Amino acid sequence: MIKLNDNFEHLPQRYIFTEVGLEVARFKKENPGVEIIRMDVGDVSQPLCEAAVKAMHEAIDDLTRRETLAGYGPEEGYKWLREAIALKVYAPLGIDFRADEIFISDGAAADLGNLGNLFAQNCNVAAQDPVYPVYVDASIIDGRNKIILLPCTAKNNFVPELPEERADIIYLCFPNNPTASVLTKDQLKVWVDYARENGSIIIYDGAYEAYIRTPGVPRSIYEVEGAREVAIEVRSFSKVAGFTGVRCGYTVVPSDLKGYYSDGERADLRANWDRRQHTKFNGASYISQRGALASLSEEGIRQTRAQVDYYLRNAGNLRAALESVGIEAFGGVDSPYVWVKTPGDMSSWDCFHMLLDKARVTCTPGSGFGKAGEGYVRLTGFNTEELTALAAERLRKLL
Amino acid sequence: MIKLNDNFEHLPQRYIFTEVGLEVARFKKENPGVEIIRMDVGDVSQPLCEAAVKAMHEAIDDLTRRETLAGYGPEEGYKWLREAIALKVYAPLGIDFRADEIFISDGAAADLGNLGNLFAQNCNVAAQDPVYPVYVDASIIDGRNKIILLPCTAKNNFVPELPEERADIIYLCFPNNPTASVLTKDQLKVWVDYARENGSIIIYDGAYEAYIRTPGVPRSIYEVEGAREVAIEVRSFSKVAGFTGVRCGYTVVPSDLKGYYSDGERADLRANWDRRQHTKFNGASYISQRGALASLSEEGIRQTRAQVDYYLRNAGNLRAALESVGIEAFGGVDSPYVWVKTPGDMSSWDCFHMLLDKARVTCTPGSGFGKAGEGYVRLTGFNTEELTALAAERLRKLL
Repeated sequence: MIKLNDNFEHLPQRYIFTEVGLEVARFKKENPGVEIIRMDVGDVSQPLCEAAVKAMHEAIDDLTRRETLAGYGPEEGYKWLREAIALKVYAPLGIDFRADEIFISDGAAADLGNLGNLFAQNCNVAAQDPVYPVYVDASIIDGRNKIILLPCTAKNNFVPELPEERADIIYLCFPNNPTASVLTKDQLKVWVDYARENGSIIIYDGAYEAYIRTPGVPRSIYEVEGAREVAIEVRSFSKVAGFTGVRCGYTVVPSDLKGYYSDGERADLRANWDRRQHTKFNGASYISQRGALASLSEEGIRQTRAQVDYYLRNAGNLRAALESVGIEAFGGVDSPYVWVKTPGDMSSWDCFHMLLDKARVTCTPGSGFGKAGEGYVRLTGFNTEELTALAAERLRKLL
Repeated sequence: MIKLNDNFEHLPQRYIFTEVGLEVARFKKENPGVEIIRMDVGDVSQPLCEAAVKAMHEAIDDLTRRETLAGYGPEEGYKWLREAIALKVYAPLGIDFRADEIFISDGAAADLGNLGNLFAQNCNVAAQDPVYPVYVDASIIDGRNKIILLPCTAKNNFVPELPEERADIIYLCFPNNPTASVLTKDQLKVWVDYARENGSIIIYDGAYEAYIRTPGVPRSIYEVEGAREVAIEVRSFSKVAGFTGVRCGYTVVPSDLKGYYSDGERADLRANWDRRQHTKFNGASYISQRGALASLSEEGIRQTRAQVDYYLRNAGNLRAALESVGIEAFGGVDSPYVWVKTPGDMSSWDCFHMLLDKARVTCTPGSGFGKAGEGYVRLTGFNTEELTALAAERLRKLL
């Protein structure tokens, strides 16, 4: 008898994005020819920046010549990309990392899912609610002792409060997906201090950091003093450089980060993650890494910043349109997401169906991100300017 | 206190390929200017086939146009690639799979490392010895109950014998890395029957299947009757199409594969792997998948077959050169590897150093693949024809 991992039985029936996809497919089948505007998807709509395109074509040409052939790369990523991230991403924030504290991945989702390998099974996990479902689902698969949800609602301004019960592993995501909230340095310091006092580890999802424009809002958790001793930061080229289909991300595991085995032995998390990746991963694509490097060139930074500005404008316009008709909406600033209170205490799914049926606009039901997301829906600024404007107009008329 | 996964303490100090790399670096530093021939690396030396190159350039161009932009793809891979694998890889072997039984990955290493997620923690694991280190190391990280090693030596013709103790999870790798051995259909049937009788799952690493040329040697475990109920097959485009740096592989989880939770509930492994990948993986690169598809076109199959033939010729020549001076060598047939008995019962590492010092040829010490690999070294046919001939000549003179 093949013995399965029991934890799969405890997973929610379906992944929210799969569920929305099925509903959209059903609608399309029942309403052939009706054109709908997808405002649910967290995927980019702008072509890949020129700098990355050029570099990736060159990378492929490298593979056509014996002399420049790039076979297996280092599991932890090419040194040139790790160094560029240290230099172009962290140094400008006043944060000093060695290249070997930065691990290149094929995207943030895999690292967020796999980092659990580093920690004792009996760890408690804390995660925001609502939030990107991977933290909770991966923790369920990993059979964590307990998952403590930290409700983030309009009541607390979408800022999680410290858990009453001690948490070993804390997932934080800012700018938050889906609520679009950000933390000030002082608000983030509360969590770093908590982790230092309680010996917790923070897994900080910074996939949307490029969208932060408000001065004083930290782009990296390492802007907070002491964070190098308690935090792993996971990032991606997906939302800054449009790499959702190209696949490249990175994870910072500072060398200051120490943990303990149950026999009292102390060990480096960095060394263990390195070992994990050498065992269960074989490196990101050479082509993708070359593209990522180019996105960090002067030209690449200019081009990708323009794209982020474009999505931010979309999200801002969307929020303004909703507010103009008295709908309560959050985000659209420092985030590509707009988090919308459903009108008249409608449920998230009822609102989803109303928007789809009456405005032919899709959203993501907030309840799919956790119980505390009930009564909200998520819209995104990732569609094109034209379709976003059209969707905003339809929503304004409907609501 | 950050609580670490204790299992990392039980890992061998270093990964064999890292260790060889460090020794080679040391030699180079101590002997500047001395040119060495790398016969250790399991990496390809031939340029990527034209069909894949063309398709990947086109894929990048798709990303430059809004209309053809490929963002997030399906976590389980694009349907066109899954269908092509069913049609071009399995159908010619008389094996019928639906596209949704085939999961595209970023390479075999990740899947081999992550498949453990599916099974109960208290599973016993059986693995060949010597063998590619990932099965054992991943099982250690996952805290498996017990790891049963199946010695494969000249005594049993490198064919593992059934374990005395029941094994829940059995890793098999044929053509084997490093011993180059293959199984006949009858020999493989012994394992399928064992798994069916004992309720075991076989994780079958078929990364080198393209090297099989001997009629009657199965290329897929599914050529054996009943295997669909007990086996997961993991494969890669790395060694067939030179994708070591491009990153693309696939894993077959047949819908006939059922397992049981501890409460007696029955479940589909296919559904659970799908769920795992949706949670902890975000799909392989669109560019890599387009390249993989092209490698399965008529043109691509012809081009990649020529490359495999080239590496097979290298390996065959290498073995013949060694045998011509009375060295016992295996493989070089149905496999890119040559498994060499060290002369005069020398240890694997002593032989490594002798070949490096005296012939300036690198190998991989067999002991790095497991205890039963002691007294052997692995050479590969993956270098160029010219350098392989030069290395063979140097070895012939030395030994």
